[in-house]
Amino acid sequence: MSPDSYLVGLIGSGIGPSLSPALHEREADRQGLRYLYRLIDIDTLGVPPERTGELVRSARDMGYDGLNVTHPCKQQVLAHLDALSPQAEALGAVNTVVFEGDLAIGHNTDATGFAASFARGLPEAPLERVVQLGAGGAGAAVAHALLALGAGRLTVLDALPDRASALAASLNRHFGPRRATAADLLDIAAETTGADGLVNATPIGMAGHPGLPLPADLLHPGLWVAEVVYRPLETALVRTARALGCPTLDGGGMAAYQAADSFRLFTGREPDTARMLADIADLTSAR
Amino acid sequence: MSPDSYLVGLIGSGIGPSLSPALHEREADRQGLRYLYRLIDIDTLGVPPERTGELVRSARDMGYDGLNVTHPCKQQVLAHLDALSPQAEALGAVNTVVFEGDLAIGHNTDATGFAASFARGLPEAPLERVVQLGAGGAGAAVAHALLALGAGRLTVLDALPDRASALAASLNRHFGPRRATAADLLDIAAETTGADGLVNATPIGMAGHPGLPLPADLLHPGLWVAEVVYRPLETALVRTARALGCPTLDGGGMAAYQAADSFRLFTGREPDTARMLADIADLTSAR
Repeated sequence: MSPDSYLVGLIGSGIGPSLSPALHEREADRQGLRYLYRLIDIDTLGVPPERTGELVRSARDMGYDGLNVTHPCKQQVLAHLDALSPQAEALGAVNTVVFEGDLAIGHNTDATGFAASFARGLPEAPLERVVQLGAGGAGAAVAHALLALGAGRLTVLDALPDRASALAASLNRHFGPRRATAADLLDIAAETTGADGLVNATPIGMAGHPGLPLPADLLHPGLWVAEVVYRPLETALVRTARALGCPTLDGGGMAAYQAADSFRLFTGREPDTARMLADIADLTSAR
Repeated sequence: MSPDSYLVGLIGSGIGPSLSPALHEREADRQGLRYLYRLIDIDTLGVPPERTGELVRSARDMGYDGLNVTHPCKQQVLAHLDALSPQAEALGAVNTVVFEGDLAIGHNTDATGFAASFARGLPEAPLERVVQLGAGGAGAAVAHALLALGAGRLTVLDALPDRASALAASLNRHFGPRRATAADLLDIAAETTGADGLVNATPIGMAGHPGLPLPADLLHPGLWVAEVVYRPLETALVRTARALGCPTLDGGGMAAYQAADSFRLFTGREPDTARMLADIADLTSAR
């Protein structure tokens, strides 16, 4: 009866404020699709992340066409899928599941989303030496994207040094030796001095974590600055860097493109990414 | 993000051809609601009807606002609900579940749907003596509706005599002694001779069960004739009775009003029943 209808959702913890429902539904409305995006919050359901697989099966049984998956379920979901895209396989994390016939296929649009945003927003940025703050889930996706975009040497710093080391080791296994290095946060000044660019993949700068993820005096006009945080769209880091004359990229692009890439996977239709970028600006300014 | 969005579905067996998705979604579209109606077919899922309760819980966990329930799950679902409407309680069958906060409330819109259709289509019909063919699930709903509408004496006939007796006994417990009687199919001529009206609540007349549910010569112009079958809308019974000059009511009204009543329960909004009746005619003529 509804050949062009789509039921999708987001599985994760504390996802009430997610912009994904609005991003997806607005684009679907522009395309004239019947499209419903539901939040499946494991906190509300009282389900531990270890039971992500059951939720994925329930969603499929209940007629879902696909799912987004977020913290803390992106790794948990792996064991319950029939196949992985190369990106998801390399990252060991899935943020998008598509139900195709009898199969559940895992994808990762965090990495493709950051890559698309970077290519659009900082197309001429030099990539010889890049410093990245944050080695969590978003950090892993961003680091993969940067090396795939051709970054020569990526230095990862994290408040948890083991996490930075593990990410660097994983990146080197995938992209070749010495492309990535973990550095101590105490050495951040030396790392940023000669760098071409800086990426923030920590939560610092979000409404709940205000401030700068590094001392302001380490920013210099020779540095491009990319941000993962998108609420607010203009973080203290973006504002400070822009005032210094640095080329900057806010986090809205990654948010819009990861949603656009998921939308394309769910529907097989080409999203209007320019409109989705405008939606991000609209939705983040409204709150 | 989507205050006016609704996710509903139908649980049952062999429900692929159901018109409910189209009926609900068309009405929702007219009202500007985001509304998705999914089929949850226990045959496709390989789930026995005894596990209806698990499906209801999954649907709630997956963000459904409500469910329709059909054969063979209308009784199975009872044990898994928090409360029942008086109609559902009296019938011992639920075709509509509404998730309200933490509660799952069972309703039956088959009975209200037939009553509304009858009141609209045969408003002046005498109800002193009514003969009903069929004592299954639809038959129980129709019989309750007829007695609630004021039928003086209802005679129920079924190919399974025990089923007719059980329904009559249940009706008399609910509406008072001697309102309902079970009769043998062999006595159908005697029953119809003096009757005011006849209702077909058997599947005979459906595309897969063509024919008349009683010998044609038992129809007489003094009889109104109501039909539960709605695919096709003009059954052999309706056509034959109409040719004799009997006031007739096809099954489309019950189908439209039960959907309209469920829609009202799911959304709290008033459906346009005239448009839904037109949808039934449109949808049944299209196949």
